[in-house]
Amino acid sequence: MTQSESETTRRHRVVVIGAGFGGLSAVRALRAAPVDVTVIDRRNYHLFQPLLYQVATAGLSPADIAAPIRSILARQRNARVLMARVSGIDKSAREVITESGRVPYDTLIVATGARHAYFGRDDWEAVAPGLKKIDDATAIRRRILLAFERAETAQDEATRRALLSFVVIGGGPTGVELAGAIAELARNALVRDFRAIDPRLARVLLIEGGKRVLASFPEALSAAAQRDLARLGVEVRVGKPVTACDADGVVAGDERIPARTVIWAAGVAASPAAKWLGAAHDRVGRVIVEPDLSVAGHPEIFVVGDTAAMTTPDGRPVPGIAPAAKQGGIHVARTICARLADVPAPGPFRYRHFGNLATIGRGSAVADFGWIQVKGLAAWWLWGAAHVFFLIGFRNRVAVILDWLWAYVTYQRGARLITGGDDGPEHAA
Amino acid sequence: MTQSESETTRRHRVVVIGAGFGGLSAVRALRAAPVDVTVIDRRNYHLFQPLLYQVATAGLSPADIAAPIRSILARQRNARVLMARVSGIDKSAREVITESGRVPYDTLIVATGARHAYFGRDDWEAVAPGLKKIDDATAIRRRILLAFERAETAQDEATRRALLSFVVIGGGPTGVELAGAIAELARNALVRDFRAIDPRLARVLLIEGGKRVLASFPEALSAAAQRDLARLGVEVRVGKPVTACDADGVVAGDERIPARTVIWAAGVAASPAAKWLGAAHDRVGRVIVEPDLSVAGHPEIFVVGDTAAMTTPDGRPVPGIAPAAKQGGIHVARTICARLADVPAPGPFRYRHFGNLATIGRGSAVADFGWIQVKGLAAWWLWGAAHVFFLIGFRNRVAVILDWLWAYVTYQRGARLITGGDDGPEHAA
Repeated sequence: MTQSESETTRRHRVVVIGAGFGGLSAVRALRAAPVDVTVIDRRNYHLFQPLLYQVATAGLSPADIAAPIRSILARQRNARVLMARVSGIDKSAREVITESGRVPYDTLIVATGARHAYFGRDDWEAVAPGLKKIDDATAIRRRILLAFERAETAQDEATRRALLSFVVIGGGPTGVELAGAIAELARNALVRDFRAIDPRLARVLLIEGGKRVLASFPEALSAAAQRDLARLGVEVRVGKPVTACDADGVVAGDERIPARTVIWAAGVAASPAAKWLGAAHDRVGRVIVEPDLSVAGHPEIFVVGDTAAMTTPDGRPVPGIAPAAKQGGIHVARTICARLADVPAPGPFRYRHFGNLATIGRGSAVADFGWIQVKGLAAWWLWGAAHVFFLIGFRNRVAVILDWLWAYVTYQRGARLITGGDDGPEHAA
Repeated sequence: MTQSESETTRRHRVVVIGAGFGGLSAVRALRAAPVDVTVIDRRNYHLFQPLLYQVATAGLSPADIAAPIRSILARQRNARVLMARVSGIDKSAREVITESGRVPYDTLIVATGARHAYFGRDDWEAVAPGLKKIDDATAIRRRILLAFERAETAQDEATRRALLSFVVIGGGPTGVELAGAIAELARNALVRDFRAIDPRLARVLLIEGGKRVLASFPEALSAAAQRDLARLGVEVRVGKPVTACDADGVVAGDERIPARTVIWAAGVAASPAAKWLGAAHDRVGRVIVEPDLSVAGHPEIFVVGDTAAMTTPDGRPVPGIAPAAKQGGIHVARTICARLADVPAPGPFRYRHFGNLATIGRGSAVADFGWIQVKGLAAWWLWGAAHVFFLIGFRNRVAVILDWLWAYVTYQRGARLITGGDDGPEHAA
């Protein structure tokens, strides 16, 4: 199609920024709509973030939990993919500004997700990396595995103990899952591999500033999770905000914990979308949206998922989890379709909560469905089935099932590679 | 065991530098010997290098073709693993010098492999990366996939054509496999994924300075491979040494080829082992060894695999392939066992050549067993079976079979992730 043809016959242009759960759900829900969709993402893959902690702890490979956006949308002829970094939004010209030029839109969906926040202590980031991207996960995997390697050759006991101490800051689902997985790695997969150290002596600490872990779950499940963590050998500290964090360890409450590996799972902040849009935002940077998820004064701009401060019609906050982002994306797509068809819009976004799930370790998880609470082995199988079911792409599901079965039977972990980092001739790798 | 006990009761100490095919075969062949083995490697994994090109072309994940050295040797109680970089060998003190201190030996096996050589044009390395390590493979994968992404948004035709031109320098097995795999990636896996470009129009060039590709194979098989490459759409240039190489392309013979992606598969050089040992070496740096693979004047030092200029008893060079390295490692282990048992040594190393295999693409390979030559589909199945069979670790075999079956049925590639590289806020990722 030449430029002049496209001018005369052009369809309504929907631009979606971000190919996470929210953005991709919107794109797929628009597959039969008379629109041209452009998805912009700075990465070439959609990431199944709920399993990212498994990459960080050597259970899965990156390719197991990520699929190229282009593959996912290959057959959706009204969608095209642009791999580019967005630097701003020109609301008056209705254009997204990227490093590859400006992309015009008639309707814009912003679904750029969240990243970790250090609550004003950005200097902690180098010491305590967070877990949002694949490269974060492989970097954390590298740190954890290298700590064991260095402990094996450490010359003194204090150094060895600091190398074998792992601190996870933040007792939400990610923190609980990371702490449990590190403890299992040390106590099972690595147990026969070293000669000078006993990996089972590794300390894993989970530090939560609030009163209990998994604060979004009922108290009984928090207690069950904490018991299961203790059974795995994780030392849980609750009510102990971290007040200092450096290369030698952390201070939690009035306790100094020497540790060479610290991982941040404490806070998220929205992407710079509110700044791009010049829109009102809440304390953590999420855009305040209208009941239909559009931006006040700009009915042609929608914000979904972790980027938005979505609320239910009765004003309660919608949690920052994948199902909420998906529902938001689908709701927006339906609103767009209704407008184009000139029929009544579906109205305000109503979040439907199906439940909360978190896993602690082998055979241990907690699930809260409101009307029923499940814990232990049953919850764990439920968790595994749900996660495999929602993994995008048949191949990934099979690969993940295989990796998990293998790990379950052998207690081994398949992706224990120390890759990346400095591999120059004068440095250890 | 305390220091004094280990002094009085200590067993013969064998140190192995390098956990590739040669080193690991030696260690495993020493499993029942009355020795203490220390394996030193700067990485924590053994790499199945013959399939590395599949990682570089998004067919397999790194964890599919690598296994932690510690896992492989977990049950071999007389072996310990040291992850460290070697900087030298003190022959008079009989110690290996590493960044983590000195490691004393009674017998030393050097199996440090080879790396790519640019024959005095080291400035080409940044432009035309080679393929020896996992990080090389993920970097090349990143380059190839990014080239398609950038072509999709390129503003002018010349830039687009240069971005869609891929040059592989070197017509040995690695070069042939890489060129074939890139052509298949472009013509099959990516074909529906783009909107502005047609990935099938990508040019893939294989440039060989010598008279034919696969020079180590019989001429009939070289010709078959070249035909199959042409059928896949690979442009093969033989008798065209590369005389220039920069960010815009290469000059081969008197032809200037604009290309943004150039991969080096032309030359290997041995590791710095000859320098460490102060030993005689050949033109590409391989240590000249005695018939039993020891170093002249140092019967306690052996060199095996690509690090050594191994020859057969009648003086013919032993090829730099995995089976030769394995046989060398096993021969050295037997020699060590014989010495300790005070029985006659097995004598000179006799390399047994089983055959040469190279794959070109889906359903196409060549195999030369001396007494019979196989090509086409039969050779390809043979190649697949042989490679899966020799992959270390049951899990990897299953994962690779699964990835291959998936790719075979769907023409898709599972590991098409662009990871690593600069992901800072001011750069594209």
